[in-house]
Amino acid sequence: MTHIDRSLLVPALSNVATRLRIDSVRSTSEAGSGHPTSCASAAEIMAALFFAELRFDPKEPHHPGSDRFVLSKGHAAPILYAAWAEAGAFSRDELLTLREIGSDLEGHPTPRLPFVDVATGSLGQGICAAVGIALNARRIESDYRTYCLLGDGESAEGSVWEAAEVAAQDRLDNLCAITDVNGLGQSRATMWQHDLSQFARRWEAFGWHAITIDGHDLNQILDAFAEARRTTGRPTMIVAGTVKGKGISLAAGKDHWHGKAFKKGEELDGVLAELERQFVPQSKDVDLVASIEKPASRPAPPAAPALIAPPDYELGDQVATREAYGTALAKLGAADARVVALDADVKNSTFSDKFEQAFPDRFYENFIAEQVMIGSAMGLAARGAVPFPSTFAAFLTRAADFVRMLAISRVNVKLAGSHAGVSIGEDGPSQMALEDLAMFRAQPDFVVLYPSDAVSTERLVAAMGAHDGPAYMRTSRPKTPVIYGAGETFPIGGLKVLRQSANDVATVIGAGVTLFEALKAYDELQKSGVSIRVIDLYSLAPIDKGALIEAGTATKGHIVTVEDHYAAGGIGDAVTEAVNEAGIRVHRIAVREIPRSGKPDELLDRYGISAKHIVEAVKAL
Amino acid sequence: MTHIDRSLLVPALSNVATRLRIDSVRSTSEAGSGHPTSCASAAEIMAALFFAELRFDPKEPHHPGSDRFVLSKGHAAPILYAAWAEAGAFSRDELLTLREIGSDLEGHPTPRLPFVDVATGSLGQGICAAVGIALNARRIESDYRTYCLLGDGESAEGSVWEAAEVAAQDRLDNLCAITDVNGLGQSRATMWQHDLSQFARRWEAFGWHAITIDGHDLNQILDAFAEARRTTGRPTMIVAGTVKGKGISLAAGKDHWHGKAFKKGEELDGVLAELERQFVPQSKDVDLVASIEKPASRPAPPAAPALIAPPDYELGDQVATREAYGTALAKLGAADARVVALDADVKNSTFSDKFEQAFPDRFYENFIAEQVMIGSAMGLAARGAVPFPSTFAAFLTRAADFVRMLAISRVNVKLAGSHAGVSIGEDGPSQMALEDLAMFRAQPDFVVLYPSDAVSTERLVAAMGAHDGPAYMRTSRPKTPVIYGAGETFPIGGLKVLRQSANDVATVIGAGVTLFEALKAYDELQKSGVSIRVIDLYSLAPIDKGALIEAGTATKGHIVTVEDHYAAGGIGDAVTEAVNEAGIRVHRIAVREIPRSGKPDELLDRYGISAKHIVEAVKAL
Repeated sequence: MTHIDRSLLVPALSNVATRLRIDSVRSTSEAGSGHPTSCASAAEIMAALFFAELRFDPKEPHHPGSDRFVLSKGHAAPILYAAWAEAGAFSRDELLTLREIGSDLEGHPTPRLPFVDVATGSLGQGICAAVGIALNARRIESDYRTYCLLGDGESAEGSVWEAAEVAAQDRLDNLCAITDVNGLGQSRATMWQHDLSQFARRWEAFGWHAITIDGHDLNQILDAFAEARRTTGRPTMIVAGTVKGKGISLAAGKDHWHGKAFKKGEELDGVLAELERQFVPQSKDVDLVASIEKPASRPAPPAAPALIAPPDYELGDQVATREAYGTALAKLGAADARVVALDADVKNSTFSDKFEQAFPDRFYENFIAEQVMIGSAMGLAARGAVPFPSTFAAFLTRAADFVRMLAISRVNVKLAGSHAGVSIGEDGPSQMALEDLAMFRAQPDFVVLYPSDAVSTERLVAAMGAHDGPAYMRTSRPKTPVIYGAGETFPIGGLKVLRQSANDVATVIGAGVTLFEALKAYDELQKSGVSIRVIDLYSLAPIDKGALIEAGTATKGHIVTVEDHYAAGGIGDAVTEAVNEAGIRVHRIAVREIPRSGKPDELLDRYGISAKHIVEAVKAL
Repeated sequence: MTHIDRSLLVPALSNVATRLRIDSVRSTSEAGSGHPTSCASAAEIMAALFFAELRFDPKEPHHPGSDRFVLSKGHAAPILYAAWAEAGAFSRDELLTLREIGSDLEGHPTPRLPFVDVATGSLGQGICAAVGIALNARRIESDYRTYCLLGDGESAEGSVWEAAEVAAQDRLDNLCAITDVNGLGQSRATMWQHDLSQFARRWEAFGWHAITIDGHDLNQILDAFAEARRTTGRPTMIVAGTVKGKGISLAAGKDHWHGKAFKKGEELDGVLAELERQFVPQSKDVDLVASIEKPASRPAPPAAPALIAPPDYELGDQVATREAYGTALAKLGAADARVVALDADVKNSTFSDKFEQAFPDRFYENFIAEQVMIGSAMGLAARGAVPFPSTFAAFLTRAADFVRMLAISRVNVKLAGSHAGVSIGEDGPSQMALEDLAMFRAQPDFVVLYPSDAVSTERLVAAMGAHDGPAYMRTSRPKTPVIYGAGETFPIGGLKVLRQSANDVATVIGAGVTLFEALKAYDELQKSGVSIRVIDLYSLAPIDKGALIEAGTATKGHIVTVEDHYAAGGIGDAVTEAVNEAGIRVHRIAVREIPRSGKPDELLDRYGISAKHIVEAVKAL
């Protein structure tokens, strides 16, 4: 916080707020699109936050000890950029490149900019990331504080209330959020318009300290920040009543001005002239930029990861890959202090409880709330942790929009989804992930892994941890035999050829439980003198295109894929894309209808992905 | 509600509760899996609800005027089945087929059963569907009431609070929910354990009437239901303190008993003997089944849809498909009274506001809350409406788990997602849907449509409305020319060949904005004497495999797909799957990295999906 006297500070901040409005208006008009009115409502909040509250170094935004700010209402990006320009991070002229293809000042903030931790613009996500960033301060024993600005319309998103619960449960008094209650959404008035008590009572009910203020009164804003800093044992929500388009009489408080830039020429000139008139006299010049408090201390960098002992399994051991995942995660956690785990009340099914038992301080329980689990992991990753959130793979779809933003943010999150496919059995379709591979494969630069045995699972968990970027691992419920020796390696982007001969009539590609069906089919076909090549496709993205084409070519141009996943987006699509242009034909075996409850083996058979169906497919070629 | 005197009613209901416990224990033990303890906590609530509160006809569960019940805590399915058996809907013996492959009594409830409206088992969804079912009563002017049972752990899901907001905003006093606060989650104690006030204060803050009771005290339960019925202007939440595994001393209130069936033999026998001892003497036999109040009235069936006038566009008109969608929806709404629309505060971007203006009573605003928008649509569809929820396609990923459960439920919901792809321009990647086709194509039996001009959009909106089952339409932000005459038809599962000759060297397949890039490429290639076939693939699922193979075969076995979507899961995969086994090679042009802000045309070019890249790809063949 600043040490400048209030009598000098407030007029200086007021003029900063006016400049931020001018910059937001000017840059959006230059771009011809954007949200100037959503910026204008937050100008005093942003001025006070950046120039009287945050401890940071404008020249070193990534300083590990600096306070963090997340703009959850990402459409107000122009005022975020204006604040950093005002702080001297880059030249004010650059603001006029807003939304241009050559500029990193995008329509909504992304981490292409050094001062943005996670991409925002899908509402209700920034507050979840802020929870993770606040947890990270505890992890690295830093006193940095985390601030987050939300919109009022955004508060309708359920993910906001997931974040509210987790932040209160974790007693995150280093977290201070502000809701910019400007009363107008995109298409109409918000649910509660300017009734600030509606917001305050919700946040208080969820265990936060709530402070209601006039969001254009700098003294009230500064007092609220100070009160938040004094509040212990719970996070603070500052509910700030504001006017959308404040300071611009053409638009202030009026509907139908959301997401509209002012037209260059007379309209813009009028707006700018009106804003210019709002500068107030200052009795004395103060250098607000010089007065920004620098980060108090620089946390120690993390220790280099230690070596991990090889997997400790015997060939033939029966181990579910989900259990091997838990074992591997605990081993990785011992070797690398950056590794943390997040759960959504299924740790005894995903076996992340093995990690919790070993490292309770690096284990974050989110109860049954997948969105904040992934969002919080994004925040942790943005600040140097290597988070492994896990739940049933089916329930990762609950956070699909977070996965999308995670990919855009390029943060180092490692997701794991257990209970893949119909092989979970009796619990039925609501618990079966049959579209998770499609979800993760769709995102560019996302590593997608699908191990079949305990050894490959353990090796791949370590590989995920070492990989720089987002990754997903799919694990299975049933026990499967260990088929690899402890010394085997599993590079990301590779595959394993498990059976081959010079006479193979087809290549059969499986992963997870279907790999064992392929091996059974191999044995069955051998009896009638037919040889097939069998591949364990443990890495779907990246995929070993060369090896697939080689195998397909060597086996008369025939490939059969078999997967415990719906037909679109999984192994069949991944393999077909890899080999189609080489003229290789792929016969896909996959789940093609909504499944039902039953025993795992019955279901593999009923939905056509068992050894019997592989044998039939090969014979039909 | 029942008319039986309390002094007779309570012991009779108590014995029903004991029978429901016995049936839940017995059926799960027979299945060897399931959640008997999660059933036991809800036994008195279920007994009172089914045999003293709900108005329904056990022999006609789908009666349009009957009260509805949604089991949001779907893992308690066995007690739902037991209650319907107790009511006489089917034989009690059938309960022992629980979770068998031949039985519709699945691990979690699905609408294969006539008394289940929507599949549950992914927590936090049932209450969203219940909101839609309650809205539907208003739509059909019925006095039926909607009841919903949630778990306490489930309350951590953000979607629950989205439902809470919308239900209060819509003043749904015909909705009564119950939270079964048994204090234990799957892997640990819940966040608030038995502190009922934590629940009550949250629901009250969200505008509900909250009643706190002992969930095993039948008098308190009956009183609470009566109080809920008397409450006007807002929905009621009954916060019921219960014991997980109530009545079974082995498990009651103990951790580590979640999702475990009692072992047949000594363990089960002991549990059953203990439960048998809990039957209480009744001074007089009462026939609870006979006393169930039947639905008060049968709402009138909907009028048959009227004919829709043909599209009213001229060839060459510039109309964005998103705008044509809004126009079409309003026309469809005029012809079919079952059609309703749902929004998440972007109606002026998706143009669903055209529907709102015409039919304000059939338009449901959900503010910025996509999960409850889709969940509510599921409930509306389950009760006979034809709901069209729409938002930016990118934000439909927020409800991906709802889409998954919607597919499992096979309900008649028609989703529309606007602002597809990089062609939205300056707003940047957070607003660009580049994985929506992957998400919807992954689900079996989901119709996926992607029109390119206003005429096809209008025809396909009507086709979606007439189709029986879930469907998705992708629309675009930029204006595109009308290329089809008003009389053209667009059957679901079809495609249009727009350019063809005997000398075509390749088939180029686009949809949406890329169709126009393909047409530009056609013109460009014509200049150098090269002919291509151009296909508008407006229906991705189902897909016209025969026509694609025919086109690919006729054009030297070469197909080029071009799409404003990531490379996995979209047009390229759909076409490749269709033609690969015919030996046709597909060259895919798609977005292959995380995009950024810029002008639409700049972005089409930068991410390699513009006419220029099509020309290059064809020339390279």
